[in-house]
Amino acid sequence: MNNNVFDDPATTREEILAATYRSLRRHGYADLTIQKIGDELEQSPSLIYHHYEDKDALVLACLEYLLDHFEAELGRGPIEAPRERLEGLLGWGFGTEMSDEWQAFMQTVLELRVQAIHDPAYRDHFTRSDRVFTESIASIIRSGIESGEFRECEPAVVAETLQLLFFGRLLRLSSTADELEEWAVDIQSEAQQYLETRVYA
Amino acid sequence: MNNNVFDDPATTREEILAATYRSLRRHGYADLTIQKIGDELEQSPSLIYHHYEDKDALVLACLEYLLDHFEAELGRGPIEAPRERLEGLLGWGFGTEMSDEWQAFMQTVLELRVQAIHDPAYRDHFTRSDRVFTESIASIIRSGIESGEFRECEPAVVAETLQLLFFGRLLRLSSTADELEEWAVDIQSEAQQYLETRVYA
Repeated sequence: MNNNVFDDPATTREEILAATYRSLRRHGYADLTIQKIGDELEQSPSLIYHHYEDKDALVLACLEYLLDHFEAELGRGPIEAPRERLEGLLGWGFGTEMSDEWQAFMQTVLELRVQAIHDPAYRDHFTRSDRVFTESIASIIRSGIESGEFRECEPAVVAETLQLLFFGRLLRLSSTADELEEWAVDIQSEAQQYLETRVYA
Repeated sequence: MNNNVFDDPATTREEILAATYRSLRRHGYADLTIQKIGDELEQSPSLIYHHYEDKDALVLACLEYLLDHFEAELGRGPIEAPRERLEGLLGWGFGTEMSDEWQAFMQTVLELRVQAIHDPAYRDHFTRSDRVFTESIASIIRSGIESGEFRECEPAVVAETLQLLFFGRLLRLSSTADELEEWAVDIQSEAQQYLETRVYA
């Protein structure tokens, strides 16, 4: 999920989704209203209601759009340099330098995941999302095994483990006052060590 | 956090906290009201308001009470059989047999963690709670190192890693439709493998 997906909206629908994404980043989920998205869009809320039933339909469409975009990017061409790709992912997911804005958006995703406990539509989205993300990690690992760079291992299991560690880190980061430097640095090197043992060795 | 903590409330305050705990398990956080806790207690809500300002003060007092109890239990005597203790924890945290009621309570804890994003009082609680739980795991590992059963390792880092993996698993379990048997079994054996490599070897 990067910022550039919505840089050049081509249709009204894409403009609405882009405004939803910016509003989500700005206000979080709980404080988001169709009015605020309308303000972001410089349009009346009635335009939005013409396309989407309510706030949740809009947020879900936005998440699905981002995920579709991510999935399409994944499908492009073979995976070159799998080790660099994995290291890049590790830096992205476990590095301790994050912008406040990015951190706020990840907290919003966490709020939406908790919505999924009781809302089947969010639940379906995150089910697909988790499968897409683990598959994206697993495909990098498989490609490294095929090229002989990586050892034989279970790509899906390694991918799932990294994903859960990332979620746990996000939850701890979002719900406690402990500084990232006190514990997250250790987790980053532990994840690194995990790859050394399981994948690179 | 086990059920028995509140089995024998000795004061009105403990009775109220016990009723809060039962109500949280029954209704979750979002649907919890002082009225429902009063019903659980078979008392008027005014009795509760005499002791606690609002729902969040009550829920926090309940969480703190559980954590104090857990902490006091930990302090009792030396740690015998550290390997069995770790294996027990692994079964508790990563096993795939959970009662629906337990799962519902863990989802409530997740909802409360998301409250902590914006509420400093919950944030303080979970900061302390995470420290207590990692320390409880780390102290088992230290005891195994001292007795020569475990290899030299960094107990705090291993404890933090297991905790994050547990959180991630809980978040995935609560927010997706994928069956536990499809992925959580692999995570359990991966956590086991992690202990073999890092602690037992």
